[in-house]
Amino acid sequence: MRIHIQNPVDDPLFLFSRDMWEAAAARAPDIGDGHDVTIGDTGADFAAGIAEAEALITEVGVVAAQFPVAAPRLRLLFVTNAGLDRLAPFDWLPPDVALLNNAGVHAGKAGEFAIMSILMLVNRVPEMVTHQRAGRWQKLWGAVAGGRRVTIVGLGSLGGAAATQAARFGMRVTGVRATARPHPACAEVISVASLDRVLPHTDFLVLACPLTDATRGLIDRARLRLLPRGAGLVNIGRGALIDQDALCDLLDNGHLSGAVLDVFIPEPIPPGHRLWNTRNLIISPHTSADDPNTYNPRSLDLFFANLRAWREGRPLPNLFDPARGY
Amino acid sequence: MRIHIQNPVDDPLFLFSRDMWEAAAARAPDIGDGHDVTIGDTGADFAAGIAEAEALITEVGVVAAQFPVAAPRLRLLFVTNAGLDRLAPFDWLPPDVALLNNAGVHAGKAGEFAIMSILMLVNRVPEMVTHQRAGRWQKLWGAVAGGRRVTIVGLGSLGGAAATQAARFGMRVTGVRATARPHPACAEVISVASLDRVLPHTDFLVLACPLTDATRGLIDRARLRLLPRGAGLVNIGRGALIDQDALCDLLDNGHLSGAVLDVFIPEPIPPGHRLWNTRNLIISPHTSADDPNTYNPRSLDLFFANLRAWREGRPLPNLFDPARGY
Repeated sequence: MRIHIQNPVDDPLFLFSRDMWEAAAARAPDIGDGHDVTIGDTGADFAAGIAEAEALITEVGVVAAQFPVAAPRLRLLFVTNAGLDRLAPFDWLPPDVALLNNAGVHAGKAGEFAIMSILMLVNRVPEMVTHQRAGRWQKLWGAVAGGRRVTIVGLGSLGGAAATQAARFGMRVTGVRATARPHPACAEVISVASLDRVLPHTDFLVLACPLTDATRGLIDRARLRLLPRGAGLVNIGRGALIDQDALCDLLDNGHLSGAVLDVFIPEPIPPGHRLWNTRNLIISPHTSADDPNTYNPRSLDLFFANLRAWREGRPLPNLFDPARGY
Repeated sequence: MRIHIQNPVDDPLFLFSRDMWEAAAARAPDIGDGHDVTIGDTGADFAAGIAEAEALITEVGVVAAQFPVAAPRLRLLFVTNAGLDRLAPFDWLPPDVALLNNAGVHAGKAGEFAIMSILMLVNRVPEMVTHQRAGRWQKLWGAVAGGRRVTIVGLGSLGGAAATQAARFGMRVTGVRATARPHPACAEVISVASLDRVLPHTDFLVLACPLTDATRGLIDRARLRLLPRGAGLVNIGRGALIDQDALCDLLDNGHLSGAVLDVFIPEPIPPGHRLWNTRNLIISPHTSADDPNTYNPRSLDLFFANLRAWREGRPLPNLFDPARGY
């Protein structure tokens, strides 16, 4: 197969190399051989690659900058990101091309980041950091995780990994997704329509769903107020899932005891933005799910899994549905 | 048995109550009945109680303030703290009294705090908080925990719980204790004499040992420098285990990438102390191991376990050895 890999423009930690490709191909011996692979960095490289490529592997920024483009032989477009909301609407996608995202590559790292964040809330670390910034010794006692109530919105690879970790710590996990199918790590799964019923009984709310028309602004001010006093929040999904200003208000007035956020509106957060000085808030710079040492190798493993399914005529595990948004 | 419980003077979250006693006695039906129990708060209560008590249950501050004291019938002194270094030297202890500490009560909470702290270092949260304090968006990528090297000094109830948690996350755990007996969660256990050999191969150093003559200043400037550049440190033991000034220097100059500390010299940390503004340091106010909701009930469970052993003439599980210091 004629495969082109286009590296990101300004992300030196996430470059694909020939060695990386060959190592991944060796891990998939049934499907890894016999490909004609180019790896590009410049616009000229992309133009030469896309003219011939049957498969393109690249990240969301390159797609946003280059498409629509003439791609006469393209059949598989593997985008090395999980959330493709930046690419909506998807009218630039040629009709014969299967769009694949990178869902699954983030699960290990994201699950660890999620349980770390939940434990930080259980232990009241955001409040400790607020006192530390003020140079003030203030005794604060946390608790143990067991028995505390976690509600996780989104049970895809990120939310599912978060649920599995929370369950390992003996927490009572409620999952929320579009349809109320069960999940092995969740004591209960509800549909998003029932969210208002569980929020008053939630100690920690974790957002791990994609940003779509259905989820934009899902956690608005009224829903944040449904959380009990002292509750905490983790967001590893997208900033626009939540009314960020309402969240800052409820942190500053003490209704919520803490938040660990990896995603914001806008990113980067500009200097002087109120987020920098909101009480009991920990800011992670949108890196919760990405480990540079394992990201690209695991992405290529996922690409080969999809290529195998495509060759065998099976459903593609990472096929992205533009209508659904994930 | 005539039992006196003396509550702490200034710690309203950690008061024993009659209900709490009766609930614990009901959980130990073979040994919980038939005791004559007083619970005191004032100095007069203590004086009346100690005159008759065969067992005294209280915290380290009360012991420091009240002993030596005439305690003619006393046989068991259960101190509801794990580290009793504040009470050294132990010349105030009447010769017929078995001194018991509270080792074990902290394991669940401390293990969770330890793995939270390790995951914060893996994810570079201390650096993120430093950038946040400066109002600066700076991309920083963490990693996954699996395969990272943790060295845990002290494998008692705190360190053992930390080792168990780290092993669950696939980390390579080296334990350090006085003698190199194996531990189920550790790939290797070394004696403290071999510490310098493992420090250069340690990503995260966790201190969870008691403060004794043998451990005071154990992690001095030279040993901190043996850690590889980018290593991180967690201290849930005692502040005096470490050269705190050297630690601050190595955080400020970037040799260490982060630290999560629960213990300090002195406590409380005074206003204006350099710790408040040391880079990449998270300060927890010496509460890592204590959950007010479960602390006293679990302490009473431990007391009954020791009382059972004492009645049956078995070794006391929580017998404190003044010569050893734990």
